[in-house]
Amino acid sequence: MTVTPFKQFRRSYGFDEVALVPGDVTINPEQTEIDLTFGDAGLDKVTIDIPILASAMDAVVDVDFAVLLSQMGGLGVLHLEGVQTRYENPAAVLAEIARTPKDNITALMQKVYAEPIKDNLVGERVQAIKRAGAVCAAAVVPANTKQLGPLVAEAGGDILVVASTVTTARHRSKSYRGLIFSELAEQVKLPIIVGNCASYGACLELMRTGIHGVLVGVGPGAACTTREVIGVGVPQITATMDCAAAREQYQRESGRYVPVITDGGFRSGGDICKALASGADGVMLGSLFAKAKEAPGHGFHWGMAHPHPALPRGTRIEVGVTSPLKQILRGPTSRTDGSENLVGAIRTAMGVCGAATIREMHQVEMVIAPSITTEGKSYQKAQS
Amino acid sequence: MTVTPFKQFRRSYGFDEVALVPGDVTINPEQTEIDLTFGDAGLDKVTIDIPILASAMDAVVDVDFAVLLSQMGGLGVLHLEGVQTRYENPAAVLAEIARTPKDNITALMQKVYAEPIKDNLVGERVQAIKRAGAVCAAAVVPANTKQLGPLVAEAGGDILVVASTVTTARHRSKSYRGLIFSELAEQVKLPIIVGNCASYGACLELMRTGIHGVLVGVGPGAACTTREVIGVGVPQITATMDCAAAREQYQRESGRYVPVITDGGFRSGGDICKALASGADGVMLGSLFAKAKEAPGHGFHWGMAHPHPALPRGTRIEVGVTSPLKQILRGPTSRTDGSENLVGAIRTAMGVCGAATIREMHQVEMVIAPSITTEGKSYQKAQS
Amino acid sequence: MTVTPFKQFRRSYGFDEVALVPGDVTINPEQTEIDLTFGDAGLDKVTIDIPILASAMDAVVDVDFAVLLSQMGGLGVLHLEGVQTRYENPAAVLAEIARTPKDNITALMQKVYAEPIKDNLVGERVQAIKRAGAVCAAAVVPANTKQLGPLVAEAGGDILVVASTVTTARHRSKSYRGLIFSELAEQVKLPIIVGNCASYGACLELMRTGIHGVLVGVGPGAACTTREVIGVGVPQITATMDCAAAREQYQRESGRYVPVITDGGFRSGGDICKALASGADGVMLGSLFAKAKEAPGHGFHWGMAHPHPALPRGTRIEVGVTSPLKQILRGPTSRTDGSENLVGAIRTAMGVCGAATIREMHQVEMVIAPSITTEGKSYQKAQS
Amino acid sequence: MTVTPFKQFRRSYGFDEVALVPGDVTINPEQTEIDLTFGDAGLDKVTIDIPILASAMDAVVDVDFAVLLSQMGGLGVLHLEGVQTRYENPAAVLAEIARTPKDNITALMQKVYAEPIKDNLVGERVQAIKRAGAVCAAAVVPANTKQLGPLVAEAGGDILVVASTVTTARHRSKSYRGLIFSELAEQVKLPIIVGNCASYGACLELMRTGIHGVLVGVGPGAACTTREVIGVGVPQITATMDCAAAREQYQRESGRYVPVITDGGFRSGGDICKALASGADGVMLGSLFAKAKEAPGHGFHWGMAHPHPALPRGTRIEVGVTSPLKQILRGPTSRTDGSENLVGAIRTAMGVCGAATIREMHQVEMVIAPSITTEGKSYQKAQS
Repeated sequence: MTVTPFKQFRRSYGFDEVALVPGDVTINPEQTEIDLTFGDAGLDKVTIDIPILASAMDAVVDVDFAVLLSQMGGLGVLHLEGVQTRYENPAAVLAEIARTPKDNITALMQKVYAEPIKDNLVGERVQAIKRAGAVCAAAVVPANTKQLGPLVAEAGGDILVVASTVTTARHRSKSYRGLIFSELAEQVKLPIIVGNCASYGACLELMRTGIHGVLVGVGPGAACTTREVIGVGVPQITATMDCAAAREQYQRESGRYVPVITDGGFRSGGDICKALASGADGVMLGSLFAKAKEAPGHGFHWGMAHPHPALPRGTRIEVGVTSPLKQILRGPTSRTDGSENLVGAIRTAMGVCGAATIREMHQVEMVIAPSITTEGKSYQKAQS
Repeated sequence: MTVTPFKQFRRSYGFDEVALVPGDVTINPEQTEIDLTFGDAGLDKVTIDIPILASAMDAVVDVDFAVLLSQMGGLGVLHLEGVQTRYENPAAVLAEIARTPKDNITALMQKVYAEPIKDNLVGERVQAIKRAGAVCAAAVVPANTKQLGPLVAEAGGDILVVASTVTTARHRSKSYRGLIFSELAEQVKLPIIVGNCASYGACLELMRTGIHGVLVGVGPGAACTTREVIGVGVPQITATMDCAAAREQYQRESGRYVPVITDGGFRSGGDICKALASGADGVMLGSLFAKAKEAPGHGFHWGMAHPHPALPRGTRIEVGVTSPLKQILRGPTSRTDGSENLVGAIRTAMGVCGAATIREMHQVEMVIAPSITTEGKSYQKAQS
Repeated sequence: MTVTPFKQFRRSYGFDEVALVPGDVTINPEQTEIDLTFGDAGLDKVTIDIPILASAMDAVVDVDFAVLLSQMGGLGVLHLEGVQTRYENPAAVLAEIARTPKDNITALMQKVYAEPIKDNLVGERVQAIKRAGAVCAAAVVPANTKQLGPLVAEAGGDILVVASTVTTARHRSKSYRGLIFSELAEQVKLPIIVGNCASYGACLELMRTGIHGVLVGVGPGAACTTREVIGVGVPQITATMDCAAAREQYQRESGRYVPVITDGGFRSGGDICKALASGADGVMLGSLFAKAKEAPGHGFHWGMAHPHPALPRGTRIEVGVTSPLKQILRGPTSRTDGSENLVGAIRTAMGVCGAATIREMHQVEMVIAPSITTEGKSYQKAQS
Repeated sequence: MTVTPFKQFRRSYGFDEVALVPGDVTINPEQTEIDLTFGDAGLDKVTIDIPILASAMDAVVDVDFAVLLSQMGGLGVLHLEGVQTRYENPAAVLAEIARTPKDNITALMQKVYAEPIKDNLVGERVQAIKRAGAVCAAAVVPANTKQLGPLVAEAGGDILVVASTVTTARHRSKSYRGLIFSELAEQVKLPIIVGNCASYGACLELMRTGIHGVLVGVGPGAACTTREVIGVGVPQITATMDCAAAREQYQRESGRYVPVITDGGFRSGGDICKALASGADGVMLGSLFAKAKEAPGHGFHWGMAHPHPALPRGTRIEVGVTSPLKQILRGPTSRTDGSENLVGAIRTAMGVCGAATIREMHQVEMVIAPSITTEGKSYQKAQS
């Protein structure tokens, strides 16, 4: 009996399932080049020294954190629809979130995020970052972009990030007209990064609207439960590779190179190296930065979809407070779990794999590998 | 040496192993259409607003629960061979089951279900549901269908469900003549739903008998141990896809569209979304509803094959009592584990995947994905 | 760069990874035929009512157990190189093994099995079984078969089992001449079952020597650590399918049908059903029988390679004492874990899968399935 | 839509995922040949009786251990850049490492290994091994090979090992000229073993430089966290097979046979047998030897990349002290976990698989197998 299958599906892969293969050549890690540029002809391009962004999440980036990360070569994205623009004094709110018991937390979150956004605070936060001499990237959700995007530009912001759980170039609704990215690019003369997406087709369509960067990742983050709640999510290695394929296709057809930023799900420097080898031009970190002494979350972390009034996705997790940001990025470290000296990890992996640039890192061989515990590591887990 | 393999077998997939890919287009969730119709020309068709049925299990559906779920747009199936028709006062029996210690429970179950079915109670339960203005679906096992089926129709029932662990269009026995579904359809002028099956061939044969719906799922339920005890079971994603393929084939050859209902194994709204994307027209829930405040099981749940006198399959499990049914279906919720606001989860997933109807949901891309814990979620499990 | 792979290897499968698919037809379980015959033209054939053998292990089969199992339709194999033939009073030795603390057990085992075999006890044990009117199958290792095999025949034994961890038709040694099975068949006029093997080639060569049954399984048993210690082992579904393919090939070339018995690794009736669907004509059970009230191991179980003086493989495991043998085989049971009513499980699975005979069971569709815990069963593990 | 995949990747395999298939022929284990030779025409070849090396790690090999292992037929490699050459009295340092609490250990390690290497101790350690009549193999890192390699030859060493986490035939650096292995072979007239590598290309390039042995393994060891920290690592079965393929290719093109040594990740004799069947000519053991009574680590074990000042990879693990080295290698044993009588395990596996030599062992069939716990072994883990 010949049966026509109802549906085909591919195997997809997450960080834990792949590993990089050492190269035939090795390179001195200090000679690797890892900077990242957003922008286009006719815009003020933004180049960062290290390909690491901090997530637009209230537990990760506030004004001070954005300034500090910029000084260290990275880029913190400030969310303009979180507590920073709902409250004059967001620190008090963040402290309350940190001290609220687990059983009451989702209800508190729903209340905290019911407070309206204040337009004046939008400009104020952007200006505070710029006054400190830092690069300023600010995030808004698609539905509010037409209103808030121009405020970012006016206040002197450098990059506009438009992000929700899933953003596409086409949104069908009877009640309102969706955001048109090509119009936005005309209106806001800044590099625009859009996310999140997780597939070839959606990424390619976004790039074709003329935007300047794409955030990749639906469902993978430590504080995200999208996959449990609505069944949607693409593991990050596959999502990154598919969006990288879209970037190559778009470059072939347009000549423009639009960076792909893998966003979410990282637990170690090893995961970052795997994302870069999968085709990412940069990474966006949430929980790894939420652990920093300077992070506004006081050792806690939560997703921006957590406070949804009717269908919350995500939880508040306790990540603890470990080290200063500088040590997380640059070391030296006495930790051996891959959570610190992330820049050193990138350069060392590139050296071992023989990649002098991020573009060469895209060519590094990867293998699908059994999870680490099946390869002789059981001692480490159980013992000192 | 060329070896002829003794047997070929395919890889099959369960809920945990797949995920939905966001669409190239997104849709406003409020504009999605999710109703479900059973029936045929010449019958009173039954349409429900939401594609969710409650399992014909004693711990899930009694008269009151069926009425309540109908009011909320779903459909509860009352089992006519459980405690509801064996006892005048089933509530007392259900309370005894709930308070019996674990070690004695299977023996108690075997005793409880040894009590004979009372024909008069069959009609009485159906009428009670109808008197409340609700849609009434009632379930019988194949061997008793010729006797009990007509009673359901006489009492005013709307849908007849014929269900056992495995039901086929052909049953070979020397001692009795099996149920002929084409004859049943002539005799009982109601939409008939038959189950369970889990393969293309068996589903296609059932559809060809002229019945109006198929329940899909052998071995997957939380309270079922069929796979341990007799080795039989097909994971739900594969079972659903195979039966959906049969539905398409049957529609091509007959023009009739027979809904496929995935029955059992759901732990979250995400699982429901995955079933719909795998080709299901609706889902039938057991343990997710057994947790409702209004469920008759008092926080316990068990399968209808559990009380088998010689070869029990299934166990009584304690699912706890969590929330009112309304909150489970419609929210709002402060839970982030996907167990509440199931209708919101369906609509949100459809919106994110760009599916305006259940038929469009059938076209959504899925990937085989590593289980969720390997994708950066370890924090959530271990921490607050 | 074109690379010639150093080695190819196939994926193999164990019990946990497959499941049976229900049939397009179902059959009344009471009408299934499950008997099993060993033998050949010119020999006294032996037919057993149920296709279940008990392992030739000291914790499983003594004289009384062999008699009891024979009365119930199965076949217990008595090991003639264990404690039964090393000691006049094996019960005392078995009791000592049962009460020895874990840390001393391997040393005790090595001492217990250093005692020489007494030739007179060989005949005595066989005759004791025959005096009780039971079928007698007795096991010896290849190196001692020329000496002990004739004693079994003389004492009236019905079946000779020649078994070690791995047995092949060809053994290369400079120090002694290996056992030639074709010569053995001439010498001992009994049905001969040989094991263990786990591959197509080895099984086919054994069948071509003219023997009458093959035991399949290297490394899978609950009390066996062969795979850890020497890396050797083939999961039972694949081993069974490969040996079943050899049986079919041998039947095509010779016209003889040599039963394949899957030996070891069973934890439930479901596993037994899967072995039969994979091509086995029967199964040999160790730990499932070691739990019987009548088993000689007092709730403990160990492999016959455990006492190896220099390289022990296996451990003594505590399986507990659960039920009388009759209940394990025929029920009724109040257990829902698949460990009891094994005959009922076989007949029910055959009914659900539409197989009237074991040969039809060989045609049943199987799928590769995720392990049971990923399919909605987590409740059962964690809760009452 | 036709999508060009961004990257292809192969599935790779670790020890836990494969098993050996018994042969069609079996062989008397005592007749197997397992010696291993390093060297070339024009050099003093070194042959060892058993194909087992001890890792160049401070917790595994000191002078006494190297002598003892040589006497038993194996080969211990002394690391010349560890505590043995940094301290006159390394035993005191090792004792301090063993008694330092877990929280302070990485900091202590970084301090201990900051002490400079003393050139005079290099020669002294080599001479001490030679004075005892043992074979002496000594390890250096590539950057120091030009300085230390000649000292090894002068002091009478037999084999020079050049090893770091990843070593290639080509290293790109602006600040120094990399090691040229073909020049080294001219300069140091000893068999040279180089490592580590893990791919076909890198291994083939190394062999073409004229060296005499290759260590295979990046990321697998018990005390190594390379894969977590930088994402790099190849599971050992695949790494071994790929390097074995390179060896075959190199032999075809040059006529020279260069042994491949699988280094790291072994937990049992079974793993060793699997490495040999995957194409290894020998194995290098770390944690299995660190447990020996004679090992210098006092029951602890750590990797040589652990003390990296800025990016430590690896941890100190407590392996415990179990048995004398002789028992680990030759038995007899009362352990059934595969950690002792490793030589017996190799010979038994070869016998069961019908391999008379290591080259025949390379031809043994392997299968990909589910991890051992899914094949009926759950009893052993949970019970006595």
